[in-house]
Amino acid sequence: MNRPQTFRDLHHGDGPLLLPNAWDFVSGAALAEAGFPAVGTTSLGVAAAAGKPDATGGTRDETLALARSLARLPVPVTVDIEGGFSTRVADVAELATELASYGIAGLNLEDGRSDETLAPLDHQTTVIAAVKRAAPQVFLNARTDTFWLADGEPDMDETLRRVRAFAEAGADGVFVPGIAAEEHVRAVVEAVDLPLNVLFTPGKADVGRLAELGVRRVSTGSLLFRKALHAATAAALEFAGADANVPAPSYTEIQTLISQPPVSGGVSGR
Amino acid sequence: MNRPQTFRDLHHGDGPLLLPNAWDFVSGAALAEAGFPAVGTTSLGVAAAAGKPDATGGTRDETLALARSLARLPVPVTVDIEGGFSTRVADVAELATELASYGIAGLNLEDGRSDETLAPLDHQTTVIAAVKRAAPQVFLNARTDTFWLADGEPDMDETLRRVRAFAEAGADGVFVPGIAAEEHVRAVVEAVDLPLNVLFTPGKADVGRLAELGVRRVSTGSLLFRKALHAATAAALEFAGADANVPAPSYTEIQTLISQPPVSGGVSGR
Repeated sequence: MNRPQTFRDLHHGDGPLLLPNAWDFVSGAALAEAGFPAVGTTSLGVAAAAGKPDATGGTRDETLALARSLARLPVPVTVDIEGGFSTRVADVAELATELASYGIAGLNLEDGRSDETLAPLDHQTTVIAAVKRAAPQVFLNARTDTFWLADGEPDMDETLRRVRAFAEAGADGVFVPGIAAEEHVRAVVEAVDLPLNVLFTPGKADVGRLAELGVRRVSTGSLLFRKALHAATAAALEFAGADANVPAPSYTEIQTLISQPPVSGGVSGR
Repeated sequence: MNRPQTFRDLHHGDGPLLLPNAWDFVSGAALAEAGFPAVGTTSLGVAAAAGKPDATGGTRDETLALARSLARLPVPVTVDIEGGFSTRVADVAELATELASYGIAGLNLEDGRSDETLAPLDHQTTVIAAVKRAAPQVFLNARTDTFWLADGEPDMDETLRRVRAFAEAGADGVFVPGIAAEEHVRAVVEAVDLPLNVLFTPGKADVGRLAELGVRRVSTGSLLFRKALHAATAAALEFAGADANVPAPSYTEIQTLISQPPVSGGVSGR
């Protein structure tokens, strides 16, 4: 085609859209410069950078400020708005309007809540429909946290019920973080006629295989942010002549770092 | 001694204070957790994260917001305020008062200006004296950019004139980024009876040797921030199956990334 590729088009290319997630302006700019055709955001990174816990709805201002700056990039940007930072439908629709006014190409909207429950399905579909009415041109990636919040075996029936309802409510894509088993991926791909987004997990979900299974978007979530934080800490320990062979922090370890002040002491020079 | 170590005490320990520099809350928290006894900030990282160029005086709000969040850490925090974000003496003093009210332990104040000239020495000493009057408990690290901005051979006479004048004006420490040659370091150590801060440059200034020369503080500047950005980009390229063997970005490359939007395209999946 001759017209420029839209963000939507990127979900229908030869392979899945490989979407890296930024947490501040410069990480987004570096990823665009590295050649990625689109950039997403990671709510963990945005929250941690600001010193706030992730997924508790406390980073609306930071998310808007980041979106405004990332909108300057020459590639489409999709923004993780967690659950929309409000349980009021009108608030979430207003947020979508605001982001659309910056020129943001996409949104991720999740049904997981800070108390680790799922939003009632009828509420979530109402929010999705309201966001699409408010910002029809924005690609709405509707995320269900059925796997993310599962205590034990994830509920596939509930997952399929949710992604189908999201599609019916007007979502442009569905996202199931934590999904990895082939039969699970295949079931979601077959259930909805929308691009499925899966989270990249090194050593777990091979991108080539995910593509064969019909996945149309693979994103990195908080991975790049955690790699960055790890590299900084390791370089600092090396500078101090200390053992720099420390493991990369997990999502949970970063959340703990934010909510519980670290204990001081240890590195005293060489 | 039995009383808790103050930030000032850390400049008079067995070895020099090894000070890593953070750019957002979580990088500071991770460095404190890694065991560093104090944490600084890097103005390049703060500016780039916000999508603004460094050393142009445009990040007063971001610097204050970061300082407020880092003040929660259990270690002393010292904040890079560039030239104070104003040429008005009263503005810089007010900024110091504000930072002191958060519990910030130290400040870096530089004489380099965004037009790549040095502030007139009498102006800079007036600012230093005013900041010390406004926030006497805050450790004022007075930085001269004679080396940083040198076009060719740095002017040692001017460097020594400046650090002596800074000391006389009430500075608690002096910082000469870019200084590395042993005779230069020795000359500054001998010129003033204040802790000298030198920038860590991998493969150039060995920390052990700097300690022998009498340096009392070695900081990382933008190094950790640049390592973090590099790790994120490399991990993203690896995820995309692209060549991840890219060099770490330089200070100048990051400044360019902020001021000139990157060109899109290249990574299209595998």
